[in-house]
Amino acid sequence: MPISAAEVQKLREKTGQGMMECKKALEESGGDAEKAVEILRKKGLATAEKKSSRKAAQGRIHSYVHHNGKVGVLVEVNCETDFVAKNEQFQAFLSDLCLHICAMAPVAVRREEMPADLVETEKRIAREQIAGKKPDNIVEKIVQGKLDKWYSERVLLEQPFVKEQERTVQNVLTDIIAKIGENIIVRRFARFEVGEGDE
Amino acid sequence: MPISAAEVQKLREKTGQGMMECKKALEESGGDAEKAVEILRKKGLATAEKKSSRKAAQGRIHSYVHHNGKVGVLVEVNCETDFVAKNEQFQAFLSDLCLHICAMAPVAVRREEMPADLVETEKRIAREQIAGKKPDNIVEKIVQGKLDKWYSERVLLEQPFVKEQERTVQNVLTDIIAKIGENIIVRRFARFEVGEGDE
Repeated sequence: MPISAAEVQKLREKTGQGMMECKKALEESGGDAEKAVEILRKKGLATAEKKSSRKAAQGRIHSYVHHNGKVGVLVEVNCETDFVAKNEQFQAFLSDLCLHICAMAPVAVRREEMPADLVETEKRIAREQIAGKKPDNIVEKIVQGKLDKWYSERVLLEQPFVKEQERTVQNVLTDIIAKIGENIIVRRFARFEVGEGDE
Repeated sequence: MPISAAEVQKLREKTGQGMMECKKALEESGGDAEKAVEILRKKGLATAEKKSSRKAAQGRIHSYVHHNGKVGVLVEVNCETDFVAKNEQFQAFLSDLCLHICAMAPVAVRREEMPADLVETEKRIAREQIAGKKPDNIVEKIVQGKLDKWYSERVLLEQPFVKEQERTVQNVLTDIIAKIGENIIVRRFARFEVGEGDE
């Protein structure tokens, strides 16, 4: 069964994936667009991990200001091509991400971007809390457990996603990488709240 | 001539100033609203400098994303009361400021907030450029002159305002403080451009 260019283009717009991949998926599904999306999605999930090492130099800046004008968010999300940056799912992710950051007030995108002094203080507190109460050989394990919990409340990618609390932002992102078929990176964000800058 | 509460309220909304000040200005102008604005404006200009030391804990967050989605700005501007934060002139300033930051890409709001290493490098370069070419007693003066120019290209408040190049952003701000009659502070901004974060 021959696949028309229009069908390929339609699937491309829906999934953001490459022309050849879309054509192959349609051939595999016998022209069934919905089944083709499923096929692409399964392939995508399998290669999402691999894709996350590819260069992502395109992307979009997105902003959100709460209706009272007292909290605002600016975010940069990168992808590999401008084609994907225009994709509806990519745009929806940008919008959700801004709402999430506004509501959940993360401190950094990734663990390694957390301010070192904050991390050190937290480690010290955790150690002091259990000092003498637990055998030495499990102290570090407990400290790490406490730190993991602390990170999951402050690191954007580890926070429970505001619209689906049982998944992390990273889970949502991995899923979108799988669907869209390009590496996507949350590069940075800024979150301002009136008055919090007072020192 | 008695001044009605409605007239006072109208002038208050127009200028963002206090009730008593508006009433006094209307009495002084014999009920002429336009003249009253002038009176308030003159008084305001005289006290703008004094006002700039008062606490500004209210304010608004404002954002702007360029139509191509590749440059975005988030800004916090503080004032003393929420009443002024709703003022039309204040809102217009927020909007202009975002456009300015988007176009002019400042590095910091104030000189003292410029990254110290950038300033040191610039000083060193300026000194090296004129070393041995000018008498020692005027070297520091020339270095300072070069630095002043360098700051005026990178410090938000010292940049020529994008909509009126013959005035600085600080000039525009001082004028608005005078008009509105409250201290107003540009607290902070973020400016993201797709790809510039690549290291």
